Amino acid sequence: MNAQYDKDEPMTIAIINPNSSHSMTQQMQASCLSLALHNETQWYECSNSPASIEGHSDGAQAAYHLLAKIRQLENSDAPPKAYVIACFDDTGLDAAREITASPVIGIGEAAMHAASFVSQKFVVMTTLERSVAILEHNLTHYGLVNRCGGVYASGLPVLSLQSNQQSYDLVKSAVSKVLQENRADAIVLGCGGMSHWVERLQQDIGVPVLDGVRIAISLADSFISLNLSTSKVAGYAWPEAKHQQQ
Amino acid sequence: MNAQYDKDEPMTIAIINPNSSHSMTQQMQASCLSLALHNETQWYECSNSPASIEGHSDGAQAAYHLLAKIRQLENSDAPPKAYVIACFDDTGLDAAREITASPVIGIGEAAMHAASFVSQKFVVMTTLERSVAILEHNLTHYGLVNRCGGVYASGLPVLSLQSNQQSYDLVKSAVSKVLQENRADAIVLGCGGMSHWVERLQQDIGVPVLDGVRIAISLADSFISLNLSTSKVAGYAWPEAKHQQQ
Amino acid sequence: MNAQYDKDEPMTIAIINPNSSHSMTQQMQASCLSLALHNETQWYECSNSPASIEGHSDGAQAAYHLLAKIRQLENSDAPPKAYVIACFDDTGLDAAREITASPVIGIGEAAMHAASFVSQKFVVMTTLERSVAILEHNLTHYGLVNRCGGVYASGLPVLSLQSNQQSYDLVKSAVSKVLQENRADAIVLGCGGMSHWVERLQQDIGVPVLDGVRIAISLADSFISLNLSTSKVAGYAWPEAKHQQQ
Amino acid sequence: MNAQYDKDEPMTIAIINPNSSHSMTQQMQASCLSLALHNETQWYECSNSPASIEGHSDGAQAAYHLLAKIRQLENSDAPPKAYVIACFDDTGLDAAREITASPVIGIGEAAMHAASFVSQKFVVMTTLERSVAILEHNLTHYGLVNRCGGVYASGLPVLSLQSNQQSYDLVKSAVSKVLQENRADAIVLGCGGMSHWVERLQQDIGVPVLDGVRIAISLADSFISLNLSTSKVAGYAWPEAKHQQQ
Amino acid sequence: MNAQYDKDEPMTIAIINPNSSHSMTQQMQASCLSLALHNETQWYECSNSPASIEGHSDGAQAAYHLLAKIRQLENSDAPPKAYVIACFDDTGLDAAREITASPVIGIGEAAMHAASFVSQKFVVMTTLERSVAILEHNLTHYGLVNRCGGVYASGLPVLSLQSNQQSYDLVKSAVSKVLQENRADAIVLGCGGMSHWVERLQQDIGVPVLDGVRIAISLADSFISLNLSTSKVAGYAWPEAKHQQQ
Amino acid sequence: MNAQYDKDEPMTIAIINPNSSHSMTQQMQASCLSLALHNETQWYECSNSPASIEGHSDGAQAAYHLLAKIRQLENSDAPPKAYVIACFDDTGLDAAREITASPVIGIGEAAMHAASFVSQKFVVMTTLERSVAILEHNLTHYGLVNRCGGVYASGLPVLSLQSNQQSYDLVKSAVSKVLQENRADAIVLGCGGMSHWVERLQQDIGVPVLDGVRIAISLADSFISLNLSTSKVAGYAWPEAKHQQQ
Repeated sequence: MNAQYDKDEPMTIAIINPNSSHSMTQQMQASCLSLALHNETQWYECSNSPASIEGHSDGAQAAYHLLAKIRQLENSDAPPKAYVIACFDDTGLDAAREITASPVIGIGEAAMHAASFVSQKFVVMTTLERSVAILEHNLTHYGLVNRCGGVYASGLPVLSLQSNQQSYDLVKSAVSKVLQENRADAIVLGCGGMSHWVERLQQDIGVPVLDGVRIAISLADSFISLNLSTSKVAGYAWPEAKHQQQ
Repeated sequence: MNAQYDKDEPMTIAIINPNSSHSMTQQMQASCLSLALHNETQWYECSNSPASIEGHSDGAQAAYHLLAKIRQLENSDAPPKAYVIACFDDTGLDAAREITASPVIGIGEAAMHAASFVSQKFVVMTTLERSVAILEHNLTHYGLVNRCGGVYASGLPVLSLQSNQQSYDLVKSAVSKVLQENRADAIVLGCGGMSHWVERLQQDIGVPVLDGVRIAISLADSFISLNLSTSKVAGYAWPEAKHQQQ
Repeated sequence: MNAQYDKDEPMTIAIINPNSSHSMTQQMQASCLSLALHNETQWYECSNSPASIEGHSDGAQAAYHLLAKIRQLENSDAPPKAYVIACFDDTGLDAAREITASPVIGIGEAAMHAASFVSQKFVVMTTLERSVAILEHNLTHYGLVNRCGGVYASGLPVLSLQSNQQSYDLVKSAVSKVLQENRADAIVLGCGGMSHWVERLQQDIGVPVLDGVRIAISLADSFISLNLSTSKVAGYAWPEAKHQQQ
Repeated sequence: MNAQYDKDEPMTIAIINPNSSHSMTQQMQASCLSLALHNETQWYECSNSPASIEGHSDGAQAAYHLLAKIRQLENSDAPPKAYVIACFDDTGLDAAREITASPVIGIGEAAMHAASFVSQKFVVMTTLERSVAILEHNLTHYGLVNRCGGVYASGLPVLSLQSNQQSYDLVKSAVSKVLQENRADAIVLGCGGMSHWVERLQQDIGVPVLDGVRIAISLADSFISLNLSTSKVAGYAWPEAKHQQQ
Repeated sequence: MNAQYDKDEPMTIAIINPNSSHSMTQQMQASCLSLALHNETQWYECSNSPASIEGHSDGAQAAYHLLAKIRQLENSDAPPKAYVIACFDDTGLDAAREITASPVIGIGEAAMHAASFVSQKFVVMTTLERSVAILEHNLTHYGLVNRCGGVYASGLPVLSLQSNQQSYDLVKSAVSKVLQENRADAIVLGCGGMSHWVERLQQDIGVPVLDGVRIAISLADSFISLNLSTSKVAGYAWPEAKHQQQ
Repeated sequence: MNAQYDKDEPMTIAIINPNSSHSMTQQMQASCLSLALHNETQWYECSNSPASIEGHSDGAQAAYHLLAKIRQLENSDAPPKAYVIACFDDTGLDAAREITASPVIGIGEAAMHAASFVSQKFVVMTTLERSVAILEHNLTHYGLVNRCGGVYASGLPVLSLQSNQQSYDLVKSAVSKVLQENRADAIVLGCGGMSHWVERLQQDIGVPVLDGVRIAISLADSFISLNLSTSKVAGYAWPEAKHQQQ
């Protein structure tokens, strides 16, 4: 497996924001500048996707465009050695793993798994109530539901997270409340749009604050070093032959 | 809720095959001719979808086109009073529930829930090994994982199911084997393309054989009578305002 | 299987209230008048049962009389083609499935399964605290425990539900409270005696309100159309020979 | 609670075989002669019950007669200080707990809980396939499903267990097979009728063999010493007032 | 198995407090004076252990000394016929079961299993918040997590439990609160240091109060009578040969 | 949190083999030479521990010595910035997290979590049958039990893994068998002593082979970059004051 990997070629981690908001991509990218990595990063958004992913139908649309972007990158001269899906819903994650052998990491799964290494019970703070069921579904799928005290929504929509002191205060206050009510010991930020708050919040709250964007990129970097690739047997096998013709 | 429903207007159940295979739509339609219903059925496929849905990436593509079809029907003069998604993977089910208030029923969930009313432990026989993890995921989501002895694949791809005696014999033999190994007492047919075999198989095997296509349509018919509609609070709320502009 | 079913014979759905309250049977029957059905309904109660089923020992007594009623109907000239057990505890459900090949549907399971088709998280409002553990047990058995935000008791006993505005207000207020606390999106009425409130409550609360009585009857009607019968292998096999002599 | 217990009064453990087979009661009683107990035992069967409990409908009938027996004993001059239900299905267990404050212990739960103290993974060997689902249901209810490698049926009906070498050999061979297949380290005998085999089987198989009859009686004896009684709040509260009049 | 057991030899239950607090051992011993037992008890603490076990690292240290104590007793002239580990965390329980064939019972598992025989939903009241995750972990391992409404901490450290009215009042008040909030019907005392409060609390609160110390000793006494020993196959097999040389 | 971390100071990942086998430490170290890391590694074993960890009592002893080693390192001039516990049982993991704020990663949890990113269902191949229950327990604790097809033992003890072609062939054959039987798509090597086989096995078997040693070290390296530290609230709080005096 992966016999084609050669450490002398330049390697790339493609980070794809499945929504169409370029400013959100930029904001996430800015929050990752200080990350120590062995590989290069390339950032993308999906220009035909909804401006933000709030709910299942946004997600289904974004998944479609995300897959197109991955196929395009896979067919390029230097396909990425790892992919990060930069939406906390892990939009299109399983489908993406079918169309590449490179590891694909969702920022939601990355943050929630990592939380289970540094805490006994974490809580997730996302944006809107409608996303709660999606994230609970993912938690069950990843197996982490018993490690999570609950998934909560601040009520602030994705696109308002880029802004100001008021938003930060609202989120900080919501986070403090659910930490205490759940007797939890870590917070997972449930939206890529909060990644610029991680250090400040960790300082203010005093428990680990997990930001999926940085964690997923760091894991992708690790997985390249470890020569880990996605299994091509059974569930993530390459798509069946008929699909080539589309 | 649903105050607009009036029993004197004609009501429609839209049955959407999320793949593009018209012959498969016809085959399913034929297997439902004898169903006693209070409402009319309209059958559709998604002409831009993959020819069959085998795996996550097929599913993600088909979900996109399925949603477009539902939006188109919702905007028509006489939107359907219920929808059936005629793929056993229940492709795009949660997303579909966001964009209509009419009930939406997947043939997979319909068959698996119904099996739990007439048996203590059912097994599912699907097409390819790659679909097993998807159906196990759905079973967990629906809560029926403990009622299911296992999900198995016959190895026959979707598009070969329309055919002959040899395919039938292979499926029948695979079904008998897993029934016995799991000490199970019912079989769920894990693909809409097997719906024409249900009576024959039930005769041959001697346990209930559940076909999602017929069951989902009958449930949709029930739900209309019961005036049941999808909750528009929280997880299935109408998409956020921004989406109107797309 | 079911070779004896002939669509030209008249078919009957027997709805059995396992308690002895005739007025409760009448009330449930009244709430089902508008249901569109393909088959006839026959209503029964169990005159030797407790007047209401509140707890396990009431249930055990009622199950005994319910089984006697089903045996009597099975031995009649025109045995029913489907049974509905009209107590939200689904009293005697598994035992009933052993002594008939016709499908048997409990109003509790019917409502809770249906809720999972139109909502992401439902709550159940039953009568007395003592019934909560029974319903939680059933939820686990049906596999729906993760789809349910909680089972709650209004404190109003079964036989007081037939009455007045005050009871309705108390239940409505209890329902609103638990919906919000659980961030749930649908309500299941946890007692057949509340079935006459379903439309009014749905109007007042704005989320789907699921009444097991109507749903179970409609499902029974569907199952007859679908020619679905209870598996007679393993768990629901006909009782062993010795029992004939009793 | 239990202030009425006085160690100087004679105390009784009532052991009730919920079926009507007197010879089975005698056989169980014989297998318990050597048990060291602080309290007296009284043995009963239920003369109007089925001769054996094989399946849900037998169980529902037996539960009815079991409750009548307990009510009769509760109304006697010296009500028992503890009850044992001597059927491995734990017939009527929850209902029995409502109508007495004395602890009630089922032989199935006793054996399965005890197994979890002396082994990492036990298997259950019961009589007929039809009982498997009932015992799996109980395992889930007791919470021990993950400690159990599986529930298996020897195919020998209850009433044939009293007999001969051939039956013993068949059970021993079935037990050895499932122990190995499940990599399990203890066996639970899934029927009171096997209690006379426990020592012989333990000798022959080399792993702990758990017999619910003896274990339940010994636990009942303990619970009396510990002054433990059934909670009369919520789920096991005394039946509601209306029932007094029946 | 256990062929060496002879009812005429004196038998001993060794009760080992894994911490080093002699006064706590004495207090537990005093609370057990009235227990009716067939066998003798011998009480020990572990003089090199932490003074109390509050958290995982205390537990890991105490487990080491507990194992040394058990090895010493096993090598004595009259090894105990049963062991009780008298810390509610069940410190070192699985390891202890490897180094003796006698049954080993933890006071935590004893109390929590027993609670499931006399209540539908119990709550646990332990000392410090840091112990909650440990007990939740144990509940999951024992399979009782669904029978438990929650594990709570009074905030009172172990060594302060021996004292006064104020401590008692604080615990009683905390217990009443969580009982009501969880609609639970029994209380498990989550620390051996509370065993002297059990009768008083049961009187004051009106629901069963379960104290692991007394229950575990009584179970150990039962298990000796029942000739139950720990399985020496697979998970609890004797340590591998290399360990003899240490 | 972690304000003391300064990227200009040298940082160290301490990898502690909790057993006393220096040759095993060397073998693991050799298998990690090619890993790309930002930080330095220091390797240790625990000279007073058992020579290998096979079962719970070995683990309890090793945990004791592991904690002593961590305390010693924490008190050194340059305490490590991350710890790896290099035993697949994750010996002493929770206890270790209490006595340092640096992240602590077990090789078992690292491999099993990573497997869930690149496969749908993995199997674990460990050494002896006695370790299976320990690893199943860990899987449940980590939440990954539903992602794992099963834990299997090759029968080869830890210390024989360093050797020859015959051992490799036996493991390879066992791995192929369980992969197929479980329809799994990745293998987790369930012992640090197999880490030198990972690439060869991956080549031979054709599915991802996950080795906890390399993965845990790479994750530790990531966690340092991400400035992630263990929560010091609730479950992993610093030990209580009394322990300072020991």
